[in-house]
Amino acid sequence: MRIEQMAEGAGLAVEWKPFNIRALMVEKGLPAGPFVPRPEKLAYMWRDIERRAMRRGLPYTKPLQYPVDTQQTVRVAFLAAREGWCGEFSRKVFEMNFVEGRAIGAPGHLEAALSELGVDAERIVARAHEPDIEDGLAAQTRRAIDLGMFGSPHFRVGDELFWGDDRLEDAIEWCLTGTLLAEPAVGA
Amino acid sequence: MRIEQMAEGAGLAVEWKPFNIRALMVEKGLPAGPFVPRPEKLAYMWRDIERRAMRRGLPYTKPLQYPVDTQQTVRVAFLAAREGWCGEFSRKVFEMNFVEGRAIGAPGHLEAALSELGVDAERIVARAHEPDIEDGLAAQTRRAIDLGMFGSPHFRVGDELFWGDDRLEDAIEWCLTGTLLAEPAVGA
Repeated sequence: MRIEQMAEGAGLAVEWKPFNIRALMVEKGLPAGPFVPRPEKLAYMWRDIERRAMRRGLPYTKPLQYPVDTQQTVRVAFLAAREGWCGEFSRKVFEMNFVEGRAIGAPGHLEAALSELGVDAERIVARAHEPDIEDGLAAQTRRAIDLGMFGSPHFRVGDELFWGDDRLEDAIEWCLTGTLLAEPAVGA
Repeated sequence: MRIEQMAEGAGLAVEWKPFNIRALMVEKGLPAGPFVPRPEKLAYMWRDIERRAMRRGLPYTKPLQYPVDTQQTVRVAFLAAREGWCGEFSRKVFEMNFVEGRAIGAPGHLEAALSELGVDAERIVARAHEPDIEDGLAAQTRRAIDLGMFGSPHFRVGDELFWGDDRLEDAIEWCLTGTLLAEPAVGA
């Protein structure tokens, strides 16, 4: 929700590189939803997401469905990145899933997201299933795995990988300065 | 390294509750070291720890040994919490492990840590293996698992659990205000 605004504020450009996290998890032999086999971690994850939304000043409603089927959506994201509208698309999809209770992958939601962005849903979904998009996404997923990515979002700055919204400030600072300056502890 | 200083700055007291994370992991059927079966996550973990140390302005040297045997050390930590010196003890043990290359659990390191803190190492280690300490630690570990803890450190504020140094600011704010105030995105 915040990367493009923050990057712009810092005079930086974001290059979106969607990859198929489901394919990554299948390759690693992992279950479809992180923490599904660990109910105490899953419970923590939901509460943490809720509190993070408070901290970021973002609306939030706990999704009814988890995990979700991302396979059509990630193809469209790959196409959107090629065409330069991946940021808007990502924010729309996440808002539907995490605010409006419209699950990623449930019937009609992808088409609705596209229509709400003002693009031709039918054309885009058809285009996103053509071989060059499938192949491009597969190659980008291979590259993500080979670079050591294991989740989403990752921010790559030169050879440094940062993982998760928690590390976005660090990724931006690294991009600007090549290092991280020490911050004093709060209240110290 | 920073919780007592931060809590003091906020006018709060920290109550240390060491528990046996190895017992928790055995109960959950997990491997001895987080991410050991996931080399790409393990590699990220080490780099993330190194960058976090930069951010906190803390010295850091990658430990040669991982995972480590914490079983004697956690008993002493439990005793130290009873006697009111768990903060100093924790900082000493972590500094030895993460700065000085003296691994937790390796021969002589626990005794050295205690001696460097100016306490009677022989007496403390013997005391830490008496039945009331063993039982107290087992009960506290049971309680941690039943509260939904799954790692370390957890910060518990009323019924809220926060996990990891990343969430320490949130835990302190929650303790002071019972909520989290929205912070604007950096650079916005």
